[in-house]
Amino acid sequence: MLFLAEMEVRIPHDADPEHIARLQAEEKACAQQLQRTGEWRHLWRVAGRYANISILDVRTIDRLHEVLSELPLFPYLDVRVTPLATHPSAISDLVRPDELSTRPR
Amino acid sequence: MLFLAEMEVRIPHDADPEHIARLQAEEKACAQQLQRTGEWRHLWRVAGRYANISILDVRTIDRLHEVLSELPLFPYLDVRVTPLATHPSAISDLVRPDELSTRPR
Amino acid sequence: MLFLAEMEVRIPHDADPEHIARLQAEEKACAQQLQRTGEWRHLWRVAGRYANISILDVRTIDRLHEVLSELPLFPYLDVRVTPLATHPSAISDLVRPDELSTRPR
Amino acid sequence: MLFLAEMEVRIPHDADPEHIARLQAEEKACAQQLQRTGEWRHLWRVAGRYANISILDVRTIDRLHEVLSELPLFPYLDVRVTPLATHPSAISDLVRPDELSTRPR
Amino acid sequence: MLFLAEMEVRIPHDADPEHIARLQAEEKACAQQLQRTGEWRHLWRVAGRYANISILDVRTIDRLHEVLSELPLFPYLDVRVTPLATHPSAISDLVRPDELSTRPR
Amino acid sequence: MLFLAEMEVRIPHDADPEHIARLQAEEKACAQQLQRTGEWRHLWRVAGRYANISILDVRTIDRLHEVLSELPLFPYLDVRVTPLATHPSAISDLVRPDELSTRPR
Amino acid sequence: MLFLAEMEVRIPHDADPEHIARLQAEEKACAQQLQRTGEWRHLWRVAGRYANISILDVRTIDRLHEVLSELPLFPYLDVRVTPLATHPSAISDLVRPDELSTRPR
Amino acid sequence: MLFLAEMEVRIPHDADPEHIARLQAEEKACAQQLQRTGEWRHLWRVAGRYANISILDVRTIDRLHEVLSELPLFPYLDVRVTPLATHPSAISDLVRPDELSTRPR
Amino acid sequence: MLFLAEMEVRIPHDADPEHIARLQAEEKACAQQLQRTGEWRHLWRVAGRYANISILDVRTIDRLHEVLSELPLFPYLDVRVTPLATHPSAISDLVRPDELSTRPR
Amino acid sequence: MLFLAEMEVRIPHDADPEHIARLQAEEKACAQQLQRTGEWRHLWRVAGRYANISILDVRTIDRLHEVLSELPLFPYLDVRVTPLATHPSAISDLVRPDELSTRPR
Repeated sequence: MLFLAEMEVRIPHDADPEHIARLQAEEKACAQQLQRTGEWRHLWRVAGRYANISILDVRTIDRLHEVLSELPLFPYLDVRVTPLATHPSAISDLVRPDELSTRPR
Repeated sequence: MLFLAEMEVRIPHDADPEHIARLQAEEKACAQQLQRTGEWRHLWRVAGRYANISILDVRTIDRLHEVLSELPLFPYLDVRVTPLATHPSAISDLVRPDELSTRPR
Repeated sequence: MLFLAEMEVRIPHDADPEHIARLQAEEKACAQQLQRTGEWRHLWRVAGRYANISILDVRTIDRLHEVLSELPLFPYLDVRVTPLATHPSAISDLVRPDELSTRPR
Repeated sequence: MLFLAEMEVRIPHDADPEHIARLQAEEKACAQQLQRTGEWRHLWRVAGRYANISILDVRTIDRLHEVLSELPLFPYLDVRVTPLATHPSAISDLVRPDELSTRPR
Repeated sequence: MLFLAEMEVRIPHDADPEHIARLQAEEKACAQQLQRTGEWRHLWRVAGRYANISILDVRTIDRLHEVLSELPLFPYLDVRVTPLATHPSAISDLVRPDELSTRPR
Repeated sequence: MLFLAEMEVRIPHDADPEHIARLQAEEKACAQQLQRTGEWRHLWRVAGRYANISILDVRTIDRLHEVLSELPLFPYLDVRVTPLATHPSAISDLVRPDELSTRPR
Repeated sequence: MLFLAEMEVRIPHDADPEHIARLQAEEKACAQQLQRTGEWRHLWRVAGRYANISILDVRTIDRLHEVLSELPLFPYLDVRVTPLATHPSAISDLVRPDELSTRPR
Repeated sequence: MLFLAEMEVRIPHDADPEHIARLQAEEKACAQQLQRTGEWRHLWRVAGRYANISILDVRTIDRLHEVLSELPLFPYLDVRVTPLATHPSAISDLVRPDELSTRPR
Repeated sequence: MLFLAEMEVRIPHDADPEHIARLQAEEKACAQQLQRTGEWRHLWRVAGRYANISILDVRTIDRLHEVLSELPLFPYLDVRVTPLATHPSAISDLVRPDELSTRPR
Repeated sequence: MLFLAEMEVRIPHDADPEHIARLQAEEKACAQQLQRTGEWRHLWRVAGRYANISILDVRTIDRLHEVLSELPLFPYLDVRVTPLATHPSAISDLVRPDELSTRPR
């Protein structure tokens, strides 16, 4: 089940730089782990902003919220979620990433 | 080069239904052809709306505008475009769909 | 899986009144049938507007879009959807309406 | 009398974590007590946000404001309220939750 | 129970002038009747706009919606409703208009 | 001359609580005094928000600004003002509050 | 008493051109007459738009609404009004235009 | 003197196609003539929209409005204008296009 | 050349009051000097807000930015600028303030 | 490949002035270097604001994000990017600035 998530990161200017750097490293590890499991299907940077456009593939809305709210940077994120249905003209999204993961890349 | 395109379709209520139906059929054929060439990389329906979320993969902005403005339904579309850069935490978008197309599905 | 759907109805002032009246009757039958099956869990009128606030309980986003886009008034609806997760402080939403339906009312 | 309340929680990043944690615990107890009395009829988490969607069932607007403004986190809440009327197509909201509370679950 | 209602009137430019004039006359009679019963407590014109600011005093939200949706101009109204609670610093709203109506003016 | 004033109060979370409490007490005294003179004709709480909806009755715009800008909480207020004209369908606002003040309540 | 009025003119594309041209001529005469009496103190065109920025000088809000709502183009105007008070740093607005009109230009 | 002009073109769906095509041809000729004189310094298409981003170089605001309001498509344009000043870090805008026009391209 | 400038003043609540008071005194002197030279043609207070509506009369956009950005309170100002052209129905703005300044008041 | 970038600078009022001044000097050097290489094609100040309007000419979106995110003031910038296509009526943008740089000015 796919969701578009638009995430804006807002770091307070007087936050402790070391604390933020640690969170950012944890965020990266977390995002990559979720990509490997197939739940964070796409992750792009919005050009010119500290923001991203993501496609998440989760089994339930509760899992969607769990994934997002457990992100290390969540307290600094402004997230807007849009549920995505199959488009009647789409031809390419039938292959699920978990199926793909058994194939060599 | 990737762009997020959010397209809202607004059919005037007094448009000729046959004309619109013909445009919709052409739009579908056009969208599927662009998916096959790899330029329309993803196409999802926004749940509850006559709208879609798309990821387009084009070589230039001129080609992006050509693709969008030649859509049969373009006169009825409200399109917002967001340029997408590579995210430093992304691991999965290195495989291009045209490479994928040579593999069996 | 729950979604908040905010629906605004916009009937063009020069639409055929009989056509609209027929759609409205079909819409009512459709909405009531979906309430009986448990998919349209709550339906309230926004005071002062031709609009409603609804809670839909569907198995997938595709089903959500199907339910909404097959409403007879869909061409005149402006729908915004918000996915709802379980709230950690909630105590009352554990009983699903399909379980309720086996109890006498 | 039903009201939709959309609540966004905004904790200042430099607030005292212990103070906030205490307020959050009190908020949870308060929200659960109000659910038990039937005044906080539904409580859902907005996926991806520190926010909730609630349906409140109160006898007067003064009581509505009392319920909301006495929440421990109220100083950090941005609340928007929408009054809800009975929808002519609704079939399921006739059973009041206080009646339900006398039935075993 | 008080509600602020902000009403914007939008007459389509190609509506039948006689039909609109008739609705406007009915609207005036309707608004004045509701003022006499005390339910439409205040009615002001927004300077420079075909719009009004109203204070409605009704027993329930269902009655609020009934009052608004039965206005002859309702199909052309855009209404936003805000529920009003007693302000702790207010001293003057304790006298209800129905009490006032027994006093000579 | 009537003005709708919508006032939102935004207390910075790190303001001195005693200072704010003192301002709030002064604000209450000030608001009540202005109600007694008839210039602050109505004062309602917006349900769920630290905000109010007010009707001010002043002789000039300069007096309007004086009244608002001398409120003790003014540095924390976000005020939007709408000038109100007599509505052609209104029947009840002809009695001015200064006339009322000579009558027993 | 001064008000900023921002007026946007929206002529429906299928309106009768002769009817509109007649209204525009009447509007011009009306605006010039109001400038001569001093009530329409300033009138500027917003560059690039069919819109104007005006300063109106009227004795009451009722007169303000009368002036605006009797403009021949009023049905096609979207007007936003902002009440203007004397600025404590202003030195130049003490001379009223009606005083000026007795001086030769 | 430079102005950013953002122009959105909105052709009514029921406008006469031949009339619009004639206006569009005239618009093109007009835009190219203004580019040759140096007043329309830059003209870009907003990707995905029937809209443009322009930089106009005019001697006065009156000339700016004249240029824009005499465009054949002006009745269908929504134009927003932003005045541009010299940026203290800019190094390249000192050469005026009219100087350039005497050089071979 | 005229520009409408809408200026909102936002003083951080924890700014040094003496520093702000000094800036405000300098701002007043600066604004009055610019009014005397005729560049700050009108200055009004927005009723109920720490904001002003101004008409500036400058020779170039660079001078406009210089005037605004050198205001002592500029770091706390949110300024929106609208270029104003001569209105075809205007009769009164032909007399420039510098001409006026040679006449006794 | 051209992009419109609208950049708003928001310096926190309690930032260290020396630190900000150093960043501003670095920003200027950086902006001028990018103009010399031709990637920052135009740079204008938005009159009345600490903001700029820029036209960037980059080979890829990744380079666009690199250019913007490496600006010394990036943590304080709010940037909105619009991709620009060739306009069918444009005649002047065929000469690239890097070609221009070989010509004497």
